[in-house]
Order: sequence, then C-alpha cells, then structure tokens
Amino acid sequence: MQPSTKTAAGRFFEDFRVGDQLRHATPRTVGEGDAALYSAIFGARFAAQSADTFAAAIGYPRSPLDDLLAFHIVFGKTVADVSLNAIANLGYADCRFLKAVYPGDTLSAVSEVIGLKENSNRQSGVVYVRSQGRNQRGEIVLDYVRWVMVRKRDSAAPAPRPVVPDLPDAVGLESLGAACPPIGVAQYDRTLAGSPYLWGDYEAGERIDHVDGVTVEEAEHQIATRLFQNTAKVHFNQFSEGQSRFGRRLIYGGHVISLARALSFNGLANAFHIAAINGGRHVAPLFAGDTVFAWSEVLAREELPGRNDVGALRLRTIATKNRPCGDFPSRQGEGYDPAVILDLDYWALAPR
Amino acid sequence: MQPSTKTAAGRFFEDFRVGDQLRHATPRTVGEGDAALYSAIFGARFAAQSADTFAAAIGYPRSPLDDLLAFHIVFGKTVADVSLNAIANLGYADCRFLKAVYPGDTLSAVSEVIGLKENSNRQSGVVYVRSQGRNQRGEIVLDYVRWVMVRKRDSAAPAPRPVVPDLPDAVGLESLGAACPPIGVAQYDRTLAGSPYLWGDYEAGERIDHVDGVTVEEAEHQIATRLFQNTAKVHFNQFSEGQSRFGRRLIYGGHVISLARALSFNGLANAFHIAAINGGRHVAPLFAGDTVFAWSEVLAREELPGRNDVGALRLRTIATKNRPCGDFPSRQGEGYDPAVILDLDYWALAPR
Amino acid sequence: MQPSTKTAAGRFFEDFRVGDQLRHATPRTVGEGDAALYSAIFGARFAAQSADTFAAAIGYPRSPLDDLLAFHIVFGKTVADVSLNAIANLGYADCRFLKAVYPGDTLSAVSEVIGLKENSNRQSGVVYVRSQGRNQRGEIVLDYVRWVMVRKRDSAAPAPRPVVPDLPDAVGLESLGAACPPIGVAQYDRTLAGSPYLWGDYEAGERIDHVDGVTVEEAEHQIATRLFQNTAKVHFNQFSEGQSRFGRRLIYGGHVISLARALSFNGLANAFHIAAINGGRHVAPLFAGDTVFAWSEVLAREELPGRNDVGALRLRTIATKNRPCGDFPSRQGEGYDPAVILDLDYWALAPR
Repeated sequence: MQPSTKTAAGRFFEDFRVGDQLRHATPRTVGEGDAALYSAIFGARFAAQSADTFAAAIGYPRSPLDDLLAFHIVFGKTVADVSLNAIANLGYADCRFLKAVYPGDTLSAVSEVIGLKENSNRQSGVVYVRSQGRNQRGEIVLDYVRWVMVRKRDSAAPAPRPVVPDLPDAVGLESLGAACPPIGVAQYDRTLAGSPYLWGDYEAGERIDHVDGVTVEEAEHQIATRLFQNTAKVHFNQFSEGQSRFGRRLIYGGHVISLARALSFNGLANAFHIAAINGGRHVAPLFAGDTVFAWSEVLAREELPGRNDVGALRLRTIATKNRPCGDFPSRQGEGYDPAVILDLDYWALAPR
Repeated sequence: MQPSTKTAAGRFFEDFRVGDQLRHATPRTVGEGDAALYSAIFGARFAAQSADTFAAAIGYPRSPLDDLLAFHIVFGKTVADVSLNAIANLGYADCRFLKAVYPGDTLSAVSEVIGLKENSNRQSGVVYVRSQGRNQRGEIVLDYVRWVMVRKRDSAAPAPRPVVPDLPDAVGLESLGAACPPIGVAQYDRTLAGSPYLWGDYEAGERIDHVDGVTVEEAEHQIATRLFQNTAKVHFNQFSEGQSRFGRRLIYGGHVISLARALSFNGLANAFHIAAINGGRHVAPLFAGDTVFAWSEVLAREELPGRNDVGALRLRTIATKNRPCGDFPSRQGEGYDPAVILDLDYWALAPR
Repeated sequence: MQPSTKTAAGRFFEDFRVGDQLRHATPRTVGEGDAALYSAIFGARFAAQSADTFAAAIGYPRSPLDDLLAFHIVFGKTVADVSLNAIANLGYADCRFLKAVYPGDTLSAVSEVIGLKENSNRQSGVVYVRSQGRNQRGEIVLDYVRWVMVRKRDSAAPAPRPVVPDLPDAVGLESLGAACPPIGVAQYDRTLAGSPYLWGDYEAGERIDHVDGVTVEEAEHQIATRLFQNTAKVHFNQFSEGQSRFGRRLIYGGHVISLARALSFNGLANAFHIAAINGGRHVAPLFAGDTVFAWSEVLAREELPGRNDVGALRLRTIATKNRPCGDFPSRQGEGYDPAVILDLDYWALAPR
C-alpha cells in the first residue's frame, strides 16, 4: 500500500490565486488560562488587561485579553495555509484591532489572497494576504495584511500576473479605537496603572529607553508559540533546524513583539491598548539564550476624531538582542545596528 | 528524637495483595487553565477540544478536555500508591474512555490489584492494577489496566501465588464511544477541523507519516508532569538521576503519547476522540533535547454498533526520537528500529 | 530632544521616609489559569487547594488559591516601589494570612515604610516596609513586614534618623486562622488528602525528611516570577547577570519557598493551610540546574484559641541545593551547612 497523502504539505507559491478565500483551521476558545500563560511568558503588566476591577472602573465589562494574544492566535491559524513553505515573513501592514476579545470568546480566521509576485529567480514568490480574526458572533476582531516569501514546488510553473496591493504607510486615525470602549478617565487610577504620564505628557520625537532586559529560553518560546497553535516547523524542531544555516530553532517573530510590548510598560504604562500596527519588520532572528531589550520613539501624538477620553500615540518600538538601548540603536547606514531584531510601528491609545 | 516515619515510602512488591482496593490522593478539579497549559505544551489542535463553538455545533455541551489530559491526571494519582518503587512501567491494556471530562469536573482515582507475579530473581515482581478515574458525580470517566515491575523491600519475603489477569488484545467495539455524544455530522465543519478526510476515507493498512518533529525541553516535561501531579522521582531530580545509568531525567512516557497524538493531527485531524487504548509499549526512553517524530498505521476501520454518526479507526502510532518517519520505522528483527520510543495501539473515532 | 525621563528607576534609600504610604501597581485578577500554572511549576498536592469537592466538603466555598501564590502576587507588586534598587532581601516577619483568596478575586497591594537605618558605609541602608494585600472588596488578605538593603543614589545624602521597628519573633496564636473557615473534620478524608496523620500526631522536636528533590530550570522560575509580576531584574536578564559576581540569573527567593512547601507534602500532607510566616532567611542563592531538597522540624504544636477543628503546627522548613536532607542539615558553627539555601519558620494548620 502506498503511503497516505492525507498529510498537509502546505501551499506552494503556484497554489495561490489572487482572490482565493482561505478559511483556516482550528477555531479556539480563549480563556483565563491563556491569559495567565501569556502573562507568565511575556510579563505584561498593563492594568486594564491585568485586573477586572481596573477594567470595569474605566469602562470595559471586564479585563480584555492582551491585544497581541489575540493577534498571535489569529496569526497562528493562518500559518498552515499561508506560510508552511515560507522562506521569510516579510512584513505586516494595515493591522487594525476592531473588537476587544474577552475570556470565553472563540476566535477563528479567514484570509484572502490580495497579491502575488514571483521573484526573479523563479524559485519563490511573494504572497500578500489580508487576514481577519472573528469571534463567535462573526464580528471582526482583527484585520491585517501580511506578506511572505513562499517557495515554488516547481520552478518551471508559470508566473502569475504580478499584483502588488496598495498598502497604507500607517493606519488612519479614523480607523483607531473601535475596540476601546469610552474610557472613564476620572476613574483611571494612574498609581495603580504604574505611571503618572498620560497622552498629553508625550511629545513627538521623545525617545524612551525601556531599560529592562529579558532572556528567552527554548521552553518559553515553544510553549507560547504552541499556545497560539502556530505550527511553523522552524520554531520546534531542533533535529531539522540543527542542519539549517542558523543551526538553531528560530523564535517566532511575534514572540519578540510581545516581549518588546511588555518591556515598554516601563515608560509607556498608560498606553494600555494597541489600536493598530502600521508596519513591522523582523530585522534579524532571535534565538534562545539571547536577551531582548527595547526602546521606543513617539512618532506622533494625535487626537482621535470624536473622542476626548483617549488619544493616540504613534510609537516606533525597536528591540535588540544582547545590547541595552540607552543610546537608542536604530538604522545605521543602509541597514541597522547589528543588534536590532525588530522595528515596529504602531498606534497605542492612552487616557487624556 | 527519632526521625519521623510520616513520609510515604511507597509500596514494595510484597505490600500488594490481589484484591487490594487503593483510593488515591489527591483529587483535582480540572479547568480551563489545565486545558490551556496542555495545549501549550503538546500543541494539540483537534477542533472539538479547541473551540466551544465547534464542540457545541456537533453535539457536545462545550469543548471536552483532551482525552489524554484526563488519562494523565488519573494516572498521576496512582503513582504514589502503585509505582513509586517501580523499576519499569511495562504496559497498558483495556483502557476505555467512558465519559467526557469538562472544565470544572473533579477527578479522583481508585485502583484494584488484579494480578501479582514475582520475578524469578526474587528481587522484584509484576503488579497488575485496574485503575478508574471518576468525576465528582462518581461516574467512571476512564478505566484501564497497567502493569509495572516493582522492587521488593526484602528479597526474602515470600512470593505470592501468581495471578496474571486475562487481558484483551484490543478493546471490543461494543465498549467504544460512551464518552462521545451523538455527533451532528452535517454540522461537522471539515475546513475548520483541518482536514477533508472522514472515517470512510481511511483504509486498513494505510500508513501516515505525520511529518513534523518537536524537540522537548526539561522545563516542558517537568511542567506537564507536575500538572498531572505525577510524582515519580525519575522525572524531576537531576541530582539523583545524574547518577543513574542514563545520567538524565527520564521523560514521563505519557508525555510521548501526548506529543505523538498532537503530531498525528497532521493526517488524522478528524479522528477527534480517543475512545480506547488497546495497548502501549514504551520501547525506549526519551530525554530532553531529543526531537520526537511519529507515524501511524490504520490497523482497522470499523463501524460502531448502533451508531452511524461516527466510526472507529484502530490506529497504531509509532513515535521515534531524532529520526523522521518517512520510511515508517517499526519492528526490526527481534526488536525495534533503534529510534523507536513508543508503539501505541488505540481506537479513535471520526465522523462518517 | 532629551531622552525621556518617564522610565521608572525605582526608589533609592534616600527616597524613603518613615510613614510613606506606597500604593503599588498593577492590580491583578487571579484565576484558575494562575492556579493551574502554579500547580504545574511547583507541584503542590494539598487536597483543599486541588479539588473543589474536597474544599467544599470541609467548609470552603470552593478551593482557595495556594497561600503562597497569593503571597507571591502581593510581594511582586511591591518590588517596583521598594526593592528595584535592592542589594539584598534581608528578611520577613509578622506575615499573616487573613482571608482566603479565590479564583476571580483581584489583588492589589499597599506598603508603609516603618523603618529606615543607613548602613555605616553610607552607600546603602535598610528599609522596613509593612505590606498589605487586599482583595476587590478592600479586605486585607495578607499582611507582612519585610526589610531590604537598598542602594543610595548619592552617598552624600544625609542619613535619616534611624527607626528600627519592633517585630515579633513569631506570630501569636490569636492571629492565626482568620483565613481558614470552620473545618468539618469528620468530612476531612485523609485518604484523599494523602496522609493519615493529623495535628495531634505531630510532636515538637519531630524531624521530617521530605525525601524528594526537584531540579529547577531557567524557564520555570522565569515563568513563575513573571506570573507574579515580580520585575526584579536579577531573575530575568542573563546579559547583565552574566557580568555579576554569580554570572547567573538569581532565582526569586519565593520560588524556593514554594518548592519547599510543595516538597513538604510528603510528610505534612494535612498541614493544608499556611496561617502565618514567622520569619524567613534566604541563606544562599539558587540557580537553574540545581536540585532542591527540604526537611522540616516541628517547633511547636499549639491549640488555636476558640477552635477545636484545626490546630497549629509551628514548622521550620530548611531547603538545600544538591544535597538530600536525610541527616537534617542546618546551622553549622556560626553559619549554615553550605548546602542550605532557605531557613523558614511558619505556622501551618492541620485538622485535629
């Protein structure tokens, strides 16, 4: 008898068509267990996500799950259909958090192929997908675009007509805040939240060293990435990765984003909600044993149309490995300071 | 004053009598936290256990806990009374999953000694126990036999009359499915579940390479095994195990079963419920740093008496360490391919 | 633009005044996820905290959270305000557990500075704080004193008038048991609890070797310490700690307390509730890879005023690293056996 062909091999570049709709497995009910584990692995301390009482005082029904936990769970579902044969995760854009996620919600994900461009070497191509995470009521909680470089199964397969979507450099102010209820600013206790600085205290151009560093262990990133049901092989299989150019398991890029966000509490404690991710670049890989540091620059401070409870801060957070950020390492010549691993541009909301 | 004798030393071979009833400590309420941690450590992705919405659509009140999580928690309770002085866990048989376990249920365990046979060297003997896990309503959720080789305290202690229970090679079809409610097959969404293949698509003799590999870390297996309140010393104490013949902490055999089951999702995504374990053999030990792979053979495809919603697949899943399973490593001569660590025979249910 | 000054640098010795009231960030709702993770990392098996059914049978509304989980969460909140610039955590006293904590409760913490004493070298001083953990109803769940040696920012800063609080050697019997409801001793099932020995079976002077050993991994202590939102840098940052005198990340002292408590189940299974901590000393640091052992001495057995359901055992638990405790290692000459890492004096309650 022939070996079974029931094992999923993942899509190759020539398997994608612009307009394809992909409904992803496996839906997931997220709960307090996920929140506790997320907290224990990343060390987030933002008060609204930590304490039901704090959340309820300012206008949430209870503590929402961390925005990035929802992001990673939605992202994880897309891997088997989009990036199982990916060479690299190239970028994110237009990521909007549209609905708060609470314990007990069930998240599922769909993606649409919105762009395709074969590389000149004909061995691979870039696939653009717009992915949406939905809750059990069908409400969109999260919507974002990412693009990945995917291998071809057969380099002789014909190239598709190139389609490169037009993506915004940044999410517009009118798209921010849908997941954030009206905040009772008078009830927002800054002492409990860990910082006296509100939206109006930040200025464009301000640079904040988040000071602390955190060393990552193999067990930690594996546990987190499996919590997200992200099945990318490079994170889990030392037998095969030991033979790769790095000789190591690669840590999921989203792990770095969550670590940097948690570190940013020290300096940005009241920037309690990520409203959008404008773009992000994984500049270099992270491996177990490395220590992650981060700093942020305030790119802009903007009012939100029709709201005077919270305002938006456009932040650029840079994470490094094995290098403190007191001198704000960043771009350097054509590239980056060699310690930089993440360059993330996002909108966070803070009370006014 | 003499040192206290209040510390449990565990039973030795001569402490067991056929017919002994053992009520085990410690009962345990299992919840969403356990489910999240189980998911994060093993990476299970079966939809019925992952999403309350999926489970409710097909006929469960909500997502049940993973069958093996219930198994490990029940098994863990038996260790202090049965196998604290075990040399080896020799086998399992007649393991039937009789009732779904839900978050909030409290599991407790009892065992009956059903067989005893001293080894010819008079240093040890084989103890057979039938163990039952019960929920807070006293309903049996799980019933299985295992046998272990246990040290004698005193080699001169008289040998008991040998009693070797008659155990079935496989659990009969009439004993399968009690823990599985009537499944609404029309509501079973194969796309969300991750595979188009239903019960009828599998054939006896079919071999499925589950492809992926997962490297195990010390922290992972320790965290999991403690979650199960399994107190076997060999899993946790490097100071003593460093002086053993392996020089390493041994990973709980059930950890391998759960990893193999999670890997089997790739090829068996719709085999959503383990109805019974016919037998299992831990062929070789697993250590931290090793990478586990798995493949399965369909031994049989059978209808369940009186049910046309789900059918049974008898599966043999073999796990290896540090060796991909594309060529289906298995028995070899008198023994096994040296990479094989687990040979498990079980019944899983899938929608028809 | 200047770098931001919004990052918390922590208080230095000269920033404290006797009478200062510190309201700590971040409140935290604790739940089943925290309980599962605590259980999985420390391996606690006390029945009242493990099974809702057991807890309900004896008089709790449901399983309370482990006493030490509540302690660590409260302690964690104080770090950013009290000990971010600490050189050493010198001691605890007068720690009373006043109210059981249940899943869903939200814990917050406040501290009062109750003593200050500059060291003769003028580089640092000792800060005494009384900290209280409260639940969402404002009830005090936990009240304790700790003292830490804190760096001065400027050695020339004037010394405060020395104030050293008068602290009890042990918590008085009248202060024990507020967190323990009336226990239905007839319903206390000793088999399920794991030991036949009740309060009256212990004698002052009795020594109990807890036998088992548990090796600690970096991922485990980091995950636990972050679960407690304890931000002390020494536990997480190998980049900086690699340059310290130890060259290693230090494990949070509370981690050792929880491991020793979990190990003490073997011999003290019915000492189900920690009512008070009289004092504790972290004699030497613990590092990942070390194996922790523990033994306990019964210092006293006392009736509780007005109660005949439970009695108090004053216990001294000593933990070691990489050294079994069969010969009860303890003080030695002026100091301690070199393997000792913890010397803890506490009151536990057990059924009569």
